[in-house]
Formats: sequence, C-alpha cells, structure tokens
Amino acid sequence: MKDIEIVAFCTDVVTRSKFAYLTTVNKDNEPETRAMLNLYNREQYPTLEKLLPFPPYEIYFTTNTSSEKMKEIESNTKSCVYFVIEIDWHGIMLNGDIEIVKDQDIKKKLWQDEWVMYYTSKTKDYTDPDYSILKLTANYIKGWTGREKIRFEIKK
Amino acid sequence: MKDIEIVAFCTDVVTRSKFAYLTTVNKDNEPETRAMLNLYNREQYPTLEKLLPFPPYEIYFTTNTSSEKMKEIESNTKSCVYFVIEIDWHGIMLNGDIEIVKDQDIKKKLWQDEWVMYYTSKTKDYTDPDYSILKLTANYIKGWTGREKIRFEIKK
Repeated sequence: MKDIEIVAFCTDVVTRSKFAYLTTVNKDNEPETRAMLNLYNREQYPTLEKLLPFPPYEIYFTTNTSSEKMKEIESNTKSCVYFVIEIDWHGIMLNGDIEIVKDQDIKKKLWQDEWVMYYTSKTKDYTDPDYSILKLTANYIKGWTGREKIRFEIKK
Repeated sequence: MKDIEIVAFCTDVVTRSKFAYLTTVNKDNEPETRAMLNLYNREQYPTLEKLLPFPPYEIYFTTNTSSEKMKEIESNTKSCVYFVIEIDWHGIMLNGDIEIVKDQDIKKKLWQDEWVMYYTSKTKDYTDPDYSILKLTANYIKGWTGREKIRFEIKK
C-alpha cells in the first residue's frame, strides 16, 4: 500500500473503532492493557471531530486522576494504543510516548457532560479533580488490513 | 464480586471475545499490541474446547515463526492479553510471562487445517517451520464488568 492509502486506512479504523485499547508499562516493567473511550469515534463523539482531527498522530484520552495508569505514566512514558474494527479484521497500533495534559483549556473543550457518571466530585464539570486527559504522541504505526501487514513511520 | 463470580465473568469474556489482543515488549522496551486468533472462542474453534479449557490461566496462541514478536519474546517475556466483548463493555486483561511452545504433540493437536492460508511452506500441516505456538502464563487479571473494576490474583 502507498502511504496515502495507509493514512486513509488508519483514519477509517481510528474513527470507527468502538474503543481505544491503551497499553502502558507498570513499575514492574509489565505491559497493561485496558479499554478506553475512543474520543475519535465520530459516531459516538460528533462534537469532538473538529477538536480532535486524525491525523496528526496524537491520540487524546480521558481518564481518572485516581487510576493506576496515571502513576505508571509518570514513571514510564512508553505506550501504545490499538484500534480495531473487529467485523472487518482491520486493526492498527500507534506506538509512542504518553503524557498527562495539564492545559485547562483543552480539558474544558474536551469535556462531555455525560462523563459526570465517571467522576464523583460535586463540581460535575471539567474542573473535577479526578478528570484527567492523556495524550499519546505516536512515532510509528503497525497494522493489519485483513490481507496484509502495514508499517508506517511518522515523520516529525 | 466474589472470586467465583469473577472466574465466571472471565470465562465468559475469554470464550466469546472475537480476538485476543496480545501485547509484548520490543527491544526498545516499547509495548506492542496486535490482534491474534482467539483459540478460546468456542464458536470459532469448537474442536479446541477440550484441549484448551479456561481456567487454568494459560493462554495459547498460534503465530508465525518469522513474525517480529518471536524475537521480542525471546528477549523479554513480560506480556499481557486483552479479551473484550465490545457490545457489553466487558473486558479483561491477563498479565504474566509468555513463552514459545516447542512440544510437537501440542502443536499437532492445536493445528487447524484452515490455517494453511497463514503459512507458505509446502508441508500444509503442523510441521510447517513457520507455524509456532505461544503460551502466556498469567499471574493476575484486571478487568471491567461494565459497572466495576475487578482484580484477581492467580494462585499458583
């Protein structure tokens, strides 16, 4: 596949995947995977499309400040995220470094009112201290189109 | 949840998940995830149910000897696998160490004729040198039931 076809393929998978399967590395150097909300799913989060284009190859996640992965990220930034369309056997992994986003403006813009169910404080908005945003900046992509492997180096 | 309920939950997720999302750690200590055939999916692989019970918490995978993950496993055995029922928001991760299975008897018993499409040699059976089996022996499980987090330590 040409690069332009790979980008189109990746965009399709990222914007339709039901979840984003995020892997971080814990203090014992063990990888840990969990399902995260896929903020790039255009059907689930239509209002985030302008704010979260794809590409660029930066993936934002919402999480709980109190979650174990927050401590893991502070000591080890190596990370990957897998997106999949199970029915099509299409899947891609983006690999890079993950960080905690402190910018209150980005946190405010990404906030969705339905997320109050995940947070327990009384603020019921983006100022909830348990609301955190993560950003994975990818260096390369690997994937499977259902017929062939792909690999894509991300130019910086 | 009681342990017996957690085990029932995990068994349901593992035996219905469409794929097994396996993460290994590469030479640069980066986690890498890819979708693998889920040999524990009882609908897809009914003939493997007796050979591959769950529990115990050992997960077998089929792969290509020539794949990059084989080299990764030889230098770093830390690994995890994620199973998911996307429609139910049910997911579990098993975390432990992964190894290459050399036992020809196990390789023969697991072999499925339909897998010839993944291997290029002329043998067209379990003796294909590119056919390899991996085994992940889990130490703990983490998951999400759709309502709550679970954690389960595996007694040895």
